[in-house]
Amino acid sequence: MQKIALIGAGRIGRIHASNVAAHPELQLAYVIDPIADAAKSVAESFGARTADLDGALGDPSVTGVIVASSTDTHLAFSLKAAEASKAIFCEKPIDLDLERAEGAACKFEVLRAKLLLAFNRRFDPNFATLKRKLDAGDVGKLETLHITSHDPSPPPAGYIPVSGGLFKDMAIHDFDMARWMLGEEPSEVFAAGACLVDPEIGRLGDIDTAKTILRTPSGKLCVISNSRRSGYGYDQRIEAFGSGGALRAGNVVESTVEAWTESGAQADQFQNFFLDRYAHAYRLEIAHFADMLVRGAAPKIGYADGVAALALATAAQASASNGAPVAL
Amino acid sequence: MQKIALIGAGRIGRIHASNVAAHPELQLAYVIDPIADAAKSVAESFGARTADLDGALGDPSVTGVIVASSTDTHLAFSLKAAEASKAIFCEKPIDLDLERAEGAACKFEVLRAKLLLAFNRRFDPNFATLKRKLDAGDVGKLETLHITSHDPSPPPAGYIPVSGGLFKDMAIHDFDMARWMLGEEPSEVFAAGACLVDPEIGRLGDIDTAKTILRTPSGKLCVISNSRRSGYGYDQRIEAFGSGGALRAGNVVESTVEAWTESGAQADQFQNFFLDRYAHAYRLEIAHFADMLVRGAAPKIGYADGVAALALATAAQASASNGAPVAL
Amino acid sequence: MQKIALIGAGRIGRIHASNVAAHPELQLAYVIDPIADAAKSVAESFGARTADLDGALGDPSVTGVIVASSTDTHLAFSLKAAEASKAIFCEKPIDLDLERAEGAACKFEVLRAKLLLAFNRRFDPNFATLKRKLDAGDVGKLETLHITSHDPSPPPAGYIPVSGGLFKDMAIHDFDMARWMLGEEPSEVFAAGACLVDPEIGRLGDIDTAKTILRTPSGKLCVISNSRRSGYGYDQRIEAFGSGGALRAGNVVESTVEAWTESGAQADQFQNFFLDRYAHAYRLEIAHFADMLVRGAAPKIGYADGVAALALATAAQASASNGAPVAL
Amino acid sequence: MQKIALIGAGRIGRIHASNVAAHPELQLAYVIDPIADAAKSVAESFGARTADLDGALGDPSVTGVIVASSTDTHLAFSLKAAEASKAIFCEKPIDLDLERAEGAACKFEVLRAKLLLAFNRRFDPNFATLKRKLDAGDVGKLETLHITSHDPSPPPAGYIPVSGGLFKDMAIHDFDMARWMLGEEPSEVFAAGACLVDPEIGRLGDIDTAKTILRTPSGKLCVISNSRRSGYGYDQRIEAFGSGGALRAGNVVESTVEAWTESGAQADQFQNFFLDRYAHAYRLEIAHFADMLVRGAAPKIGYADGVAALALATAAQASASNGAPVAL
Repeated sequence: MQKIALIGAGRIGRIHASNVAAHPELQLAYVIDPIADAAKSVAESFGARTADLDGALGDPSVTGVIVASSTDTHLAFSLKAAEASKAIFCEKPIDLDLERAEGAACKFEVLRAKLLLAFNRRFDPNFATLKRKLDAGDVGKLETLHITSHDPSPPPAGYIPVSGGLFKDMAIHDFDMARWMLGEEPSEVFAAGACLVDPEIGRLGDIDTAKTILRTPSGKLCVISNSRRSGYGYDQRIEAFGSGGALRAGNVVESTVEAWTESGAQADQFQNFFLDRYAHAYRLEIAHFADMLVRGAAPKIGYADGVAALALATAAQASASNGAPVAL
Repeated sequence: MQKIALIGAGRIGRIHASNVAAHPELQLAYVIDPIADAAKSVAESFGARTADLDGALGDPSVTGVIVASSTDTHLAFSLKAAEASKAIFCEKPIDLDLERAEGAACKFEVLRAKLLLAFNRRFDPNFATLKRKLDAGDVGKLETLHITSHDPSPPPAGYIPVSGGLFKDMAIHDFDMARWMLGEEPSEVFAAGACLVDPEIGRLGDIDTAKTILRTPSGKLCVISNSRRSGYGYDQRIEAFGSGGALRAGNVVESTVEAWTESGAQADQFQNFFLDRYAHAYRLEIAHFADMLVRGAAPKIGYADGVAALALATAAQASASNGAPVAL
Repeated sequence: MQKIALIGAGRIGRIHASNVAAHPELQLAYVIDPIADAAKSVAESFGARTADLDGALGDPSVTGVIVASSTDTHLAFSLKAAEASKAIFCEKPIDLDLERAEGAACKFEVLRAKLLLAFNRRFDPNFATLKRKLDAGDVGKLETLHITSHDPSPPPAGYIPVSGGLFKDMAIHDFDMARWMLGEEPSEVFAAGACLVDPEIGRLGDIDTAKTILRTPSGKLCVISNSRRSGYGYDQRIEAFGSGGALRAGNVVESTVEAWTESGAQADQFQNFFLDRYAHAYRLEIAHFADMLVRGAAPKIGYADGVAALALATAAQASASNGAPVAL
Repeated sequence: MQKIALIGAGRIGRIHASNVAAHPELQLAYVIDPIADAAKSVAESFGARTADLDGALGDPSVTGVIVASSTDTHLAFSLKAAEASKAIFCEKPIDLDLERAEGAACKFEVLRAKLLLAFNRRFDPNFATLKRKLDAGDVGKLETLHITSHDPSPPPAGYIPVSGGLFKDMAIHDFDMARWMLGEEPSEVFAAGACLVDPEIGRLGDIDTAKTILRTPSGKLCVISNSRRSGYGYDQRIEAFGSGGALRAGNVVESTVEAWTESGAQADQFQNFFLDRYAHAYRLEIAHFADMLVRGAAPKIGYADGVAALALATAAQASASNGAPVAL
């Protein structure tokens, strides 16, 4: 059993704690959170102890650390874990500041840190199946890509100022998906943003709606659609257009039940948000972390992926501000 | 241009009149109906004249007769048309009395009558595609068949006594579909009927709901589901289960539009009844009649098919009454 | 933690063992199986010990027993567990002999046995959603029901003689579904069987294909379609037709991915068999067993349900043999 | 009966001729085409005569003129028809040169020309249903729009130089759809183009793939995806995202038949190209033209709509060339 320390006992921390506890090769040893009650509650639920960071990192039997604390601590805590020679599972984004993230890369390299950057959607069975079929050439050579990524409803306004903005907070997932599917680094970004959902978001200097076009050196084009509020649940879809056809991954419904009435066939609701839609993905990314710890697997998503997605988000933000494409 | 006489200026007569008028090789010449206003209205709409039956049949330039009058006249009018050496397009059912229908068969044979029995569903592009794929062996050898045939809402109670009952009036279409798809004459029928939709239908001695099982000599099984009222539009579906998979033909929607809301994805309404769902089928069966007239094509559905479907309906009615299977 | 003894270390036993081990309130204590290696393998995988039946039942800390052994032992082992005052989770069918099952009912009553008969499909989220909407009156009053239940491929021929036949082995699930959905005990059964899939099944005296009609005292009709081989995966669907519309539960796909090519839109495969399709249902039925043990919940499916489903299977078998409906 | 003169006996001219001939209020009187055989063939098929333009326009009984000749003649022929006081049905685009089109507007106004610019997609029942639901507020206030418009396969290379390029030839339909759905004139266009389908198209100075973003003064965003080759048929879809949900119009299949095999559920092919997909739309736009002629209906799409769509296409072309957004 590999012992795991969890930093961050919030909503996503609790998900990881539960998946660690249920995994046959992992054991949740420590929970670290400045809010003592939160740490205690998660620790008790899953048979772990609360600790402070140094205590947990000082325990030589701990082999893995999950960084699920607030975004501004991701980089520092990951680095501390790396210095303690622990494998790291770090929530996205790696940081909100591109320069700082790029600057830290070298330290992780020197430490030969084993870091999994937790872009959970790569583990979603639907997107993973699409990627597998794409790689298998089922629709020929990829030409263009459409990513739709709309949240059911916006976060509380108080979150906006610390979020990093739509692109770094929300679209960063889509930039990672785009990079993964395109198999090539985008060389140009154009983003058109708007504040259509909630004027308060605009007053806070952010946007809530965006359409972004990425272009790669070989000419592939990718469109990303983001909205903070769909009005119909969590909308997470990808369409990949190839030289021999197209692949689509659609939304996930609560059940296969349809009601047929005079209004037509009514399907069941879409799974409403990420905790439901990506429940299986969260289990699979913890399983991959176990593979890293137990069988020495290389992380499927590394520090460099976190930086590259952040670079795209940063460029998109600049494009939306300036109203012009940005070269990368 | 082949000249056509139409007997019966009701709802279905008007459909055929319109399709004859629109067909480049056919011309609607006469409309015959005891209700003078009805005849006149249809004749005027499509550039024809009203006439009495003898007058129309006596016109040697008339080559085809459409029998779309009330069911109890189908046999007599078809026979008169045959005696006048006209090709016949006869609405279903051929008659409500099996003995009489069987008895008349010989007369049509002697006259070498060219009669198309208008089981319109064979011309539906969906069912025709299913049949084509079945015949092409796309799912191996057919083993069992499910036919769902539910009307949106029951006919007026006044129609029930002259309808011939659920099996001869409504399910007869499904018996024809079953025979066509199975490629084999059923040898046994078991029907379970109930009156669940409207107690008035029960008081009039009929049922409004039935589940029927047909068995063929080779062991194929077919289930037919009938209801006089679906509550969700016209439900016309077939599932064909073969040794290597299954084929399904589904309902037709008014448009491809879906509304996505918090309740889920709402598809558009099903086309509500036969005039919409089978609009194209009606055009195609008139086109086939034109083929018979112009190019000597053999009728795809003949008198014997009308009798065979009626025999199944009669047996199903007996089974539902007696509560036991009936051998054919 | 409630301690559980598992009788039967076969395929389904292993599923239950895994779900017990993963449940926070349950602990797998003993595994009993005459095949020592099988028992040992399951016990080791989930942190339990092997034992003989008396040893396990004699441990007063064991509160629940899972009977997942061969069908002919279900009744005897359940009774032994009841005599030892353990709560019982018993796999379907309760027995293959209706008289014996009926005869034993009294003993379980006298012992006030807490027995959950594990008809897993009642825990399937799709069917449970359909049932919930039906009970909520979403489509008015239920009138008729269609259950499609086709296996992907037949069992090995060697299993047929001990299976109890198609109705008691396979369709018994559908009889339970029918009873649950109809909310009324069927009073008549007509079953038409055939051997279309594998002649060897016929030589062994069984059938591999059946269409069954149930009728209830109030006139509701239910059609069940069974096949030992679909050719397209596991087909588990229900359509419920009510006075105000219809509800449908469809098959579950491996992913939402569609491939669009010149042939049309190709959806992903259906989940192929019960271990996949009902994986979540198995977890939920173990969770319900935990509720029984920890919070005194009444079993949602009891001994009487097992007997009633067996009575329907027995009647269907008689109907298929005699070619006539059987009253219950 | 209104007499119609048709200019242009090519593929689309023949469609219009057929729909005119089938319409009860219209009669095809003349067919004009410099290729005498083409004119003769269409004229003979639909009971019309061939003529030269002056002859046809000189016939005072002719009330309507259909301009379906090559694009470079649309403007001149429409003007001649207007001068002869005929109502005009003019194929898209109105012209390839924005300045010329704008310059001619005044002449049509002075002549009070009754001109229907034939953007056929507005008559498609699927898009029309989406528009109706949008206007009815079914999903609240429109915020963003996605239009997918991919052809099954590219035109012959020889067509490219006279086509006006991807934006004026193909995407112009989508610009019209966008204007219609948005209910507001776009004020900014950014288009990213690529040559991914056929290098020959690139050598001829055109692109075959584009992603375009439109922005309106109120902040609405619209994405248009164009490809000259889909590899899976004709892809014509719209998604409209509103404040209370989304509306989608999907592709149209050849039939509702699905084949279920071990590979999953295979739907039937998409209707392959515009003659099939928009067959009904073509009938409805001719019916609207009849409404203009017979009942004085105002054209639903006028000269100004043709100019506005051309302005968007021109701006998109400039944006794609310059790599920067273009303001309108």
